[in-house]
Amino acid sequence: MARGSAGRSALSRHLRVLGAFGPLTGDLTLSEIAAAAALPLSTAHRLVAELAEEGLLEPVGDRRYRPGLRLWELATRTPGAAGLRELARPWMGVVHARLRQHIQLGVLSGHDVLFIERLSAPDAVVNATLIGARIALPLSSSGLVLLAHAPEALLDEVAAGHWSRPTARAIADARELRARVADARRDGYAVLDGAIHEASRGIAVPVIDSTGRVHAALGAVVPIDETPVRPAIELLTVAAAGIARSLEATAGGAAARPGRPLRPLLATSRATLAYFEELGVDTVLELRAHDD
Amino acid sequence: MARGSAGRSALSRHLRVLGAFGPLTGDLTLSEIAAAAALPLSTAHRLVAELAEEGLLEPVGDRRYRPGLRLWELATRTPGAAGLRELARPWMGVVHARLRQHIQLGVLSGHDVLFIERLSAPDAVVNATLIGARIALPLSSSGLVLLAHAPEALLDEVAAGHWSRPTARAIADARELRARVADARRDGYAVLDGAIHEASRGIAVPVIDSTGRVHAALGAVVPIDETPVRPAIELLTVAAAGIARSLEATAGGAAARPGRPLRPLLATSRATLAYFEELGVDTVLELRAHDD
Repeated sequence: MARGSAGRSALSRHLRVLGAFGPLTGDLTLSEIAAAAALPLSTAHRLVAELAEEGLLEPVGDRRYRPGLRLWELATRTPGAAGLRELARPWMGVVHARLRQHIQLGVLSGHDVLFIERLSAPDAVVNATLIGARIALPLSSSGLVLLAHAPEALLDEVAAGHWSRPTARAIADARELRARVADARRDGYAVLDGAIHEASRGIAVPVIDSTGRVHAALGAVVPIDETPVRPAIELLTVAAAGIARSLEATAGGAAARPGRPLRPLLATSRATLAYFEELGVDTVLELRAHDD
Repeated sequence: MARGSAGRSALSRHLRVLGAFGPLTGDLTLSEIAAAAALPLSTAHRLVAELAEEGLLEPVGDRRYRPGLRLWELATRTPGAAGLRELARPWMGVVHARLRQHIQLGVLSGHDVLFIERLSAPDAVVNATLIGARIALPLSSSGLVLLAHAPEALLDEVAAGHWSRPTARAIADARELRARVADARRDGYAVLDGAIHEASRGIAVPVIDSTGRVHAALGAVVPIDETPVRPAIELLTVAAAGIARSLEATAGGAAARPGRPLRPLLATSRATLAYFEELGVDTVLELRAHDD
């Protein structure tokens, strides 16, 4: 086997093991990991040991494993998820304080919406969204908004594909999907009632910057009742514009400068940003322990 | 080379490439990645291609790369970071609404505090903490609190090690460190003035459950001024107790049941939890696109 394909193959096996842990999975035994990853037990044993040695998995009690801190630490460097979430959160907080239901931020990933942030409340309505979980584009108001601003080829692909219909009100076919997406493009928002659960209404708007690029969909999940949707749409639209401005401000600020840029998507105080600029990247990192 | 060590070696090389991206790093060119990872350019080229194929890196514009969505998605399954953060956030929001400065949550990782969440405000004081970045235990009030509840052997190791002293007020030596940690153990909190920046005061309390296990430190970074610290300590203590109760409620709820448990650390509405219980894990996951 050539060296390149050996590396690729090792990586894909490690990812199969990590992929055994889903958004609702707790810790797993070695046998559960082997079964979920469709790997022989001996192979799973070796891969789990390798991943645990690097801190990507960590042992929990007796012979169980869960994803480890090191994996999470590496992933905080993902500007398109961790950084976007950090900038969006203050705006999401504003919407959440008013609506007191679920407020969520989703990005396009393949044929799904991948949800990167969600604020909820104990008495909020049923909502299938989990942070880090996916929902097929046609099932979600956020998905319709993302499709409305995606290349036409993606809509063709999705329309030709299949999706679950958890309720009778879910979008049934390609024709209905195209009509809903056209509405979302025309209106600048999407509202979808009872597509995943009979009780729940999704409302979403795009996070769209001044160049017309769509970074995410900002959505609310609320009960289906007599409450007018217009105020929620307006609130979401104001917040989405605020997120887009934050994105442009940071991407046009430190990150646009030549040399080693600071992380573009960072929400902290002005005094802290000035402090980081002055110190430079290397000094900031020296604050960690020297012998670790 | 035996198969086991080949896999281990492939994993460690992939992680060296991902490790080139730090908490303040933007996107990088291939040469920058090779330099940061101390790898030959040809090796870096191959590894970057492998990681990009799996979505762990993603291309940005012309010949630049950044950590990809897939990496972040896998990391959302990390209960000790992503799950803990999700449960803690509502409590952090309560403290933040009162103090209007930086509120942060850190966990013990090696000889560092690894910060997993932070709320800030534009006018807040200087604060070196970044989500996903580390600060040596002796430099941070959160670190003192974590050391106060860690095994004595860890304190011995840290006291025997070295740490930066960004200011003259930073803890100077092992004797001073041991005294400060003893204070934190006695008082149930730590206050550290000007240890990282002359203007900033750290205040931290442990998140400690009813079994005495410490899960994290909850801290505030505020200006050094005449404001009494006692109200902040009390607010942090109440919030830390709330986080600990949330942790115990979820860990003792769905996750403790036999069979395939729901993810233990999940903050959503009661109606949503009931819905997930009813559906089961597999149905929830089927909401993603079938052909993706």
